[in-house]
This record gives sequence, C-alpha cells and structure tokens, in this order.
Amino acid sequence: MNLDTLSLLPQAHIGMSLSDVPTPALLLDLEAFEHNLALASILAAAHGVDLRPHAKAHKCAEIARRQIEAGAKGVCCQKLGEAFALAREGIEDIHLSNEIASARSAMLAAQLAKHVNLSICVDHPQSVCQLATALRAVGSNLRVLVEVDIGQRRCGVRTVSEMLRLVDSICADTTMTFIGIQAYHGGVQHVEDWEERREAAEEATASAYEFFAALDRRGARGLTVTGGGTGSIEFDVASGVFTEIQAGSYILMDRQYGDLEWREFQPRHALHISSTIMSTPSAQRIICDAGLKSLTVEAGLPVPRSIDSDLKFEQWDYVLANDEHGMLEYNPKNNVNDMPQWGDQLRLIPGHVDPTINLYDEYVCHRGDRVLDKWRIDARGRSW
Amino acid sequence: MNLDTLSLLPQAHIGMSLSDVPTPALLLDLEAFEHNLALASILAAAHGVDLRPHAKAHKCAEIARRQIEAGAKGVCCQKLGEAFALAREGIEDIHLSNEIASARSAMLAAQLAKHVNLSICVDHPQSVCQLATALRAVGSNLRVLVEVDIGQRRCGVRTVSEMLRLVDSICADTTMTFIGIQAYHGGVQHVEDWEERREAAEEATASAYEFFAALDRRGARGLTVTGGGTGSIEFDVASGVFTEIQAGSYILMDRQYGDLEWREFQPRHALHISSTIMSTPSAQRIICDAGLKSLTVEAGLPVPRSIDSDLKFEQWDYVLANDEHGMLEYNPKNNVNDMPQWGDQLRLIPGHVDPTINLYDEYVCHRGDRVLDKWRIDARGRSW
Repeated sequence: MNLDTLSLLPQAHIGMSLSDVPTPALLLDLEAFEHNLALASILAAAHGVDLRPHAKAHKCAEIARRQIEAGAKGVCCQKLGEAFALAREGIEDIHLSNEIASARSAMLAAQLAKHVNLSICVDHPQSVCQLATALRAVGSNLRVLVEVDIGQRRCGVRTVSEMLRLVDSICADTTMTFIGIQAYHGGVQHVEDWEERREAAEEATASAYEFFAALDRRGARGLTVTGGGTGSIEFDVASGVFTEIQAGSYILMDRQYGDLEWREFQPRHALHISSTIMSTPSAQRIICDAGLKSLTVEAGLPVPRSIDSDLKFEQWDYVLANDEHGMLEYNPKNNVNDMPQWGDQLRLIPGHVDPTINLYDEYVCHRGDRVLDKWRIDARGRSW
Repeated sequence: MNLDTLSLLPQAHIGMSLSDVPTPALLLDLEAFEHNLALASILAAAHGVDLRPHAKAHKCAEIARRQIEAGAKGVCCQKLGEAFALAREGIEDIHLSNEIASARSAMLAAQLAKHVNLSICVDHPQSVCQLATALRAVGSNLRVLVEVDIGQRRCGVRTVSEMLRLVDSICADTTMTFIGIQAYHGGVQHVEDWEERREAAEEATASAYEFFAALDRRGARGLTVTGGGTGSIEFDVASGVFTEIQAGSYILMDRQYGDLEWREFQPRHALHISSTIMSTPSAQRIICDAGLKSLTVEAGLPVPRSIDSDLKFEQWDYVLANDEHGMLEYNPKNNVNDMPQWGDQLRLIPGHVDPTINLYDEYVCHRGDRVLDKWRIDARGRSW
C-alpha cells in the first residue's frame, strides 16, 4: 500500500464493528437519533407550530434532509458559510438566524437568495441598506426578519420603536419582504429546574409578545415569530406566540442538555466520542486519547460511559482535558470491580454538542456495535 | 454564478486586502512568523541541540517544511493521523511523541514506517508486543523511545525499573531500535514568572536525568533525550540533558504563552483571528462574529487588538464566547475616544493556539494588510 492510499484511508467502513473504528471518532446512535427526530416533529405538529430545526449544531445536510422529511419546514443556519454548504447539498429552505455586517457578506446573501428560499435577520439600519444595495446589484429578493432582544442582551433591537423604524425601512424597499421577528433567549435554555425554566421561558415569551403586539396593532398579519430552543421547546410550542421553533441540540443532545430536568419531552443521548485508554499511570488515574481536539469543555467536562453492559467506566470521572489526552480519575461511588485496562475503549458524552461536532468531518452512524452509515459534516469549519 | 461555484468560493485570494477577507479567518503574520522561526533555530544551534518542533499546534506541512529548511531535524506529531497527513505532503522525519494503544494503530504505524523515518513512544509492555507483531507483519522497522514521567503524572513510566524492563523488551526484538527517552512536563510551560519557570524546568530536567543516568550506567551511548517546550526552551537547550527540543507553540504564539515573562527568547504573536462587529446593543457592549467555533477558550478568553494604529478596541475586553458570537465590554482603562462602530473589524489573539488552529482549514498569510499566501492545515481534525 502506498502512502497516498494509506493517508486517505477512511476512519470507518460501513459494516464494521464500532470497536474497530480508530478512536477518537464521533459516533451517532441511529436509534436515539430517530427517537429525537420523531419527538420534536410530533410535539410541533400537536401544537400546530412550524419546526425549523437549527443546523448550527449538526452542520449536516443528511440530518437536515431527515428533519425536513419528518415534517420540518426548513432549517436555520447561523452563518452564511453554513447556509452555502447546506444549500449546495440541496437544502432549499434556509433561515439565517443571525446578522451579517459587511458589504461582501450582503452580496453573498443576495446571490444565495437566487438559489434557495432564504430569510435573514437584521438589527441595524446599515444592514438594511447594505442588503438592499446587494439585492439590487444581483437582482434577487430576500425575506427579512427583525431580531428583537428578549433578555439575552446580545443581538436584536431593544425597543419597539427601534423595531418599527427597521420594519419601515425594510417595507420601503422592493427588494425585501418583511416577514416577522426573531426572538431568542439562550439563557433560558440551560436552567436546570423544569419549573424555573418554564418561568424563564414565559418571561422571554412575554417580552417577544410585546414586540409582536406592536406590529399586530399596526395591522400586520400572518407574521412569523421564530425562536425557541431545545431547553424551552415544551413551553415555546404552547406559548401562542411562537409560530416557528428553532430547537437544534435536541436531535443529538449533550451533557449540558442531559443535565436538565425533563418531563414530557425526553430526548436521548445520540452522540458519543469513542476513546481508548492509552496509558495507565496508576490504579486511581488513567489516560484516554480524547482531549481538547476531540471535544470541547467550555460547558463542562465529558461524562465517561462504559460500552454495553460492561460497567468498567462507571467508577471513573473525566477530570482534565489536555490537547490530545483526557485524564480519568477513580471515583469509588459505585461498587464495580471490573477495572479498565490499557487498550480498553469507552464512550464520552461531550459537554457541549455544537463546538464538539465542529471538530469532525463525519458522523459514524451505528446501531448497537455495527457501523451502518457515515454522514458528512458539510458545514464543519464554516464560521464565516 | 451558480450555487456550486458560489459554495466553493475561497475565503481569501492572494493579493487581496485583509479587510476584504470574510471574517472570522485565521491570520498568520509572516513577519512575526519569520522572527519566531529564526529565533528558535538560532537558539538551538547556539547550544548544539537538535530542534524537532511540534507540529501538533500548526498541523501544517508548509510550516514543517520551513522549520526543517531553517535547521530543524524533523518534526513531532502527537497523533498517527497527523503523521500520515504530513508524511503525505513530503515530511520525511517524524517523531510520534505519544503512545498508541490498539492493534489497528500499530499496523498503521508499521505501514507508515515503510515510507518515512518514524519514531514512536511506548510506556506499556503490551504496546511493545503490538508494535512487534505489526512490524513483523508489514516487514518494517521502527525507532522506539520510552516515555518517562518527569512530574506531569500523565503518560510515561514512573520508575527506572519500569523503563529498563521496557528497554529490554524493545532491544530483544529485531523489528525495533531503542533510541532513547522522551521526557515532557506540560505543567512547566505555563509558569508565568521566569525565575519560577526556570526552577520548575530544572526540577523536571533533574528527573529526566535520573532516567538517562540509569541507561548511561548500563553503557548506552548516543541516546536521544527528547522533550521540552516553548515555555521552557531557554532552560531546555542549556540543560545538558535534552538532545532534542520539541517546542511547538513558539512559531505562532497565543495569549497564554504571551502572558509569560520572557527574557532572551522573545517570540511574537504571529496568529490572530479576524472578526467583525455585527451588533452594537449599547455603548458598553458590542457583539463580534467570532465565538466558540472560531477560537477556543479553555485556556482563557482572547485579547482584542485594534488594526494598525487605530486604537478603537484598546478599551474593550472580550468577556463571553457563545457558539458564533463574542461579547465585548467597555473597559475604560485607557483614554481613547474612537469608539468601535457596526461593521468594524478587529483582531483577536486566541487563548490557546493548538485547539484554535484545529478549527480552520487554512492560514491566511499576510504582510501588513496584504494577503500573500494561504497554507493548508493538512492535519486539521486528525485526532486519531
């Protein structure tokens, strides 16, 4: 075998056993994935709201296709580069749930709008001007939403009058169609206690309603109110305010969302990082091969899971991530005596799904121990 | 322009102004890079030690080539996947400064050793057996080093007797050549105070010497003692123990290393993330387009830098990283009145170079404001 052949070897082959896939790899459990896929579709349909899952987490056209097939209206992207990557793979209805702030990006958005059904957010008058100039130059049209700030203090206009001024400038331009507002509050998503999360979601929704009501009073009808997320999905669908739900992480889940208190809506962990024990310095400390380049830790360390009924890793905590190493320490909370050995594999539930997936080129999709598919992460690295 | 053409548009073109490159982008300042390149070469040559820069940070064959051209003996890789990516681009002398722990990886290492001058670390007897089996099957030979633990408590044998048993088993097998030891202490690298760092480095070196001396007493000659890093490079080259220095981050630098007290050896920041102000919620808070998918924060938040003599961002701290947004807050420590505006660009010095680079496909190489080259990050995502 020559070096070129060797270098281009795929990590995983369809049909192989998961234990033969070189670690670390990004594993997608198809059974849990399908459970989560159905769960959100059923919930949205039951409440008569549109589902527009966020693709910023999964960055994968195959997942977007399956979400649309299961009833989603389209997807959200957070970056223009992501939208291009998914559009190229045939995703036709994309909402860019974010602002862009350069003439060059406005030109790209205008060009993309010639090919797909694109909508975009604005929160600044200059953005409206830039988009109008670009749309006129390219000869395309764009659906536009005003992002409103409902408590996150990040993007979005802060007052009704700011919103109305933007709406007026959008409506005054023939290249753009004003279709509604975007209202998202990231802080609500991770409130662990279910009741407290419900209260936080209600407060955010009440704020969104104020913006909506001002438009309603001006006679605007059929407006889109888009927002919501995985943590607040149960409240968002029933709010009577949101017409479209942008939840994204539910489809794969992570430690952070797994730590929430869930009631009716119960998504499962569909995403794991496979890892191998590569050094065994002591009986209390072992080293695995998955560090900061295989998972991100800004939202907490990953949780080790044993494979199948093997309980070897139930006594171990992942305590430190170096660039290419993970340190696991013994935590004798359980009475399990089957100690991990050099060369053993484990699975890790990552702390935060979005930036972790952005480290990989593909999902290794499996049922049980069998690799059944590989899905390309089309928008990986598309941060522009 | 059709969608396919649009989707595959490069982010940066050679000759363009940096301000036209869509943000966020990974910028490499060629002037600072060349300064750092020369600095380490001169230092190693002056002390008569070999330089074998670590490629785990830059992951780029073009940078490896330039390091070798400037006098480096070869490079280090931390993962087999990295080594394959660089070997494919013509890098011929690679030390895998890490352990592997599966029969499949051992086979890949054995195959790679047919094509390039490869060495590898072991710290477990099973690894020696696995490698021997693979080398015999493939018909190749491998240079092997025993990793010794000099205080980091991560990988590496902890005692001289453990080391000697491994050395014996390596020497007993005709497929392997024992060439020395690897001794690295990551904790030393980030001690900010120069004197304290010198003391920590001396302690680590003394521990490495104990392992070396045991081999020396057995009559081993011409051994490689490889290790060291950017933070300890001044002490490592002069230690009389290390024959080969593995420093990696010095070539690009990051906030973490920039915060150290430096004396003779003074590397410059050659790496920045470009970013655009995309929302301006208040006079005290602005939002940029570079978040967790454009830089990693586990070793601290990035530092904003104004472009050229423009001091707009000197009053602002990057205070929070969301997935695709960065929050900057006003910090009135300086008397600068030129406030950032919507659409303005800034540069960010990332907290931690290695995992940040692993998010990008290419370096946009520039002198001043002009894009002069683009270097592919060949081993990006190669975590296996």
